[in-house]
Formats: sequence, structure tokens, C-alpha cells
Amino acid sequence: MPRFALEVEYHGAPFAGWQRQADQPSVQGAIEDALARLEPGPHTIAAAGRTDAGVHAIGQVAHCDLQKDWDPFRLSEALNFHLKPQPVAIRRAALVPDDWHARFSALERRYVFRLLMRRAPATHDAGLVWQVSQRLDPEPMRRAAAYLIGKHDFTTFRSSICQAASPVKTLGELRIEEVEGWSGPELRFFLRARSFLHNQVRSFVGTLERVGAGAWTPEDVRDALEARDRAACGPVCPPQGLYLAGVQYPEDPFV
Amino acid sequence: MPRFALEVEYHGAPFAGWQRQADQPSVQGAIEDALARLEPGPHTIAAAGRTDAGVHAIGQVAHCDLQKDWDPFRLSEALNFHLKPQPVAIRRAALVPDDWHARFSALERRYVFRLLMRRAPATHDAGLVWQVSQRLDPEPMRRAAAYLIGKHDFTTFRSSICQAASPVKTLGELRIEEVEGWSGPELRFFLRARSFLHNQVRSFVGTLERVGAGAWTPEDVRDALEARDRAACGPVCPPQGLYLAGVQYPEDPFV
Repeated sequence: MPRFALEVEYHGAPFAGWQRQADQPSVQGAIEDALARLEPGPHTIAAAGRTDAGVHAIGQVAHCDLQKDWDPFRLSEALNFHLKPQPVAIRRAALVPDDWHARFSALERRYVFRLLMRRAPATHDAGLVWQVSQRLDPEPMRRAAAYLIGKHDFTTFRSSICQAASPVKTLGELRIEEVEGWSGPELRFFLRARSFLHNQVRSFVGTLERVGAGAWTPEDVRDALEARDRAACGPVCPPQGLYLAGVQYPEDPFV
Repeated sequence: MPRFALEVEYHGAPFAGWQRQADQPSVQGAIEDALARLEPGPHTIAAAGRTDAGVHAIGQVAHCDLQKDWDPFRLSEALNFHLKPQPVAIRRAALVPDDWHARFSALERRYVFRLLMRRAPATHDAGLVWQVSQRLDPEPMRRAAAYLIGKHDFTTFRSSICQAASPVKTLGELRIEEVEGWSGPELRFFLRARSFLHNQVRSFVGTLERVGAGAWTPEDVRDALEARDRAACGPVCPPQGLYLAGVQYPEDPFV
């Protein structure tokens, strides 16, 4: 059975998250259903990151096993045809070795978070950004972010239902850029790590927003990290600004 | 009765266009209904450009007459409150002289058109761009656009139902930029003129797309213009990539 890697983009709004659930629409379910239109199922696909309800992806990666030796481009075209009108698209497909695994072969995940700063409600970007009314100062946010980079016990920034074996993770990057977006001034957060804890990015961004608003100092964030206590975290921000942006493997399967 | 200018942003998808219609949702109707929540109506507002069904705006400008001497910021906040959850937002409001008119005082309209070039269906930008599958070559498109700039009889690029008194207009700008957009490579068209004919921008973009695809030469566009014949126009492109981006007045009312 040939194995295929799929680079997947989706709009998170209509889905209860990546993972297939009995009674609710999921991205995994949408793709598995599309696969069943190509070859009799059931199909079970695995993904690099199991995104939560409302979280988007530009570069999620999944893999599937099929009977037929599909041409990868034709496979992506056929899946996109059957995925319509759901907001899920296969950007690229590639043949991979039988032991390649979208989740276990991954070296690093990249996330982007979009925070729109304006007063009037967003229309074109509604559901695609987290909108706050006031302008935030990115400089203290960057100083706070510097405390988070590196290897730490991230218990403070981890959902209480997180199932990871250890709260110790290494955050490779947490970069904050000011961007003039389509709907106005945005802060974009670029994060990179081998793996993330449940709600880690939203816990970071919600806490850093407090710093940008002047309610917290950068050192408050350092103290919160060192407390290793979920109660020390700032507010967890909403999911609609979060995008799984890409996954790195020892070799790029799509090249 | 004080007169207020409103800078309006909207997502065109749910509306039959700007103009109020008896049985269909319109942007004008949505704003007039919101005004009626502030002061008893009926209210009739005028806009700089009457956009078609599915066309968006970032910087539409309208004006309204009210009884109360509203603080402009409070007016925009109250309207945004009553406009929810419709995708219409008042970005700014300003007090203007009684003889100021959103349509007749305007010196120039600016439009932007977003054309996304990629194979996989757009998810985040669905409904916000015109998507074509193949890469277009912008260089011949720019040479073709150069024939359109300036004062011409634009009969070729004018809808048969256009009500403008004359087909002669002066196109101040038709610039094509390559942009790496959120969903992939885009061509963005920036257009500027005192006024536009009905379907003029969509007739331009649909025709220029044929040039970028290699089906037309730049000189075919020149010949089409000179034919002064609607039948000589290329295909009219769909509305969902089109944005009314801004309106210029002798003095900026919002400063």
C-alpha cells in the first residue's frame, strides 16, 4: 500500500477541530470521507498536529495509505474535488516511504498567530484574526517573549487537560512582527518548536497581550513561567487567530 | 440637521450590492436600519460608489443626516453595535458641512482587485479573491494596461446596462503588483479614476487575465479599446476579488 503525505490548508471555523469525532464535523473526518470516495474505506489518517476547534492551518501535514499507485498531483486534485464546498484544501501531495509518519517523523512545528488591533469589527478578516480594540506596544512583548524562548518547564502555559508526558519543551522561536494587514495593523507571532503543549500558543499570546496593553511587565511573564503553575498564566486567547503554518521533516516530502 | 460622513468597510458576499432593494439584503439597507435604531427614520444615505452584488469595500464613503449632534466616534460605535453580526463596519465617522455630498463631492475613486493564482481551492480567502489555476505573466498585462490609462471612450469595457451619460472617462492609474498573499501568489490591480463605468474594473481585469495567460496580446487589448464595441471585450471577471478601496475629496473629511 503506497503511503502519501498531504499538505493541508483549512479554515477552522466549521470544525470541532482536526480530530475525528462521532457527532461533529472535523477536518480529519472531511479528508477521510473524501478518501473514501476514491477508494473504499474506512480510512484513518494521521496528522502532525491535532489542532483545536476554530484553529486554522496553512501547512498541516497528514499521511494516508492507499491501494492504488496514485499520481500525487491527481490525488490532490481528486481530494480537492470531493472536499468541496468544505474549506479544506490539499495544497500538495507526495509519495513517501512506508515507515514515514506525519506525526512521528516531524522534527518541528511552526505556528503563526494573527492579532488585529483596531476598533471597528473586522469584516473580511472576521474569524481569521483575534481582534483587540487598543494598540499594543510590541517592545515589552518582545522582551517578555525572550524569557519564554529555550528549554523550560511550561506548566504555566499548558492546558489542564494536556496529555503530554512532560511539561518540559524547547521553544525555538517566538518572534513578534508588526504588519500592516488587509484590515489594519496586526501583530503576527511566529512560533517554532519540536512540539507544543495543549493551548501553549494561545496561553503565550493571551499573556503577551496583557504585556502589550501595559497590564503586565515582561518580568511578570518570567515570574509566571518560573511559578510552574497554571494559575499564574494570563488569559488564554481565542483560537481564531491561530494557524498551524508548517511542519519540518528530515527531508521535505513535497520537494 | 448635522451631516456625517461614514467610512464603510464590508464583505460583499451576503448582499445584493450597495443599493437598497425591496426584497434583498443590501449594505445601504443594513446601515439605514442601524441608523433607525439611533434616531427614528426613515433614513436615506448616499454613497460614493454603488457597488454590485458580491463586491467588497475597504473605504466606501457615505453620508447621513441626523437630528442629534452626535460625537462622531460615538456614532461609529453605536452603528457598529447595531450592524452586528452583519459584515459591515463603520471605520470612521466625521461631521461634514451641510452641502458636502459623498457622491457629488468626490474627486476620485480607488479600487483594488485581488487575483489569486493557485491550483488548490482557497479556504481562508474564499470569496475574497478571484482564483485562477495557472500562473499569469504580469509583464504583458502591464503593457496592455498602459493602453487603457488616460482619457478614452471605454464603450468596450462598459456593461450594456451602464447608465453613465458618456462612455468617455479618464483612467488615472491601472497598476499591477505581484504580492505574496496569505494564500499564495496574487496579482493586485490598483485603479484610480474620477469615476468608473458599470463593470469597468471587472471588464478590465477579465480581459487582462487573458493577456497574462497568453491568449491575448497587449495589442489585442488596444484594438479592443479602439473598437468601441462591447462585443470586443474579454470575459468579465467575477466580483469577489473587487474592493472599493477609497474615495478622495477636496479635503479629507476624516482628518
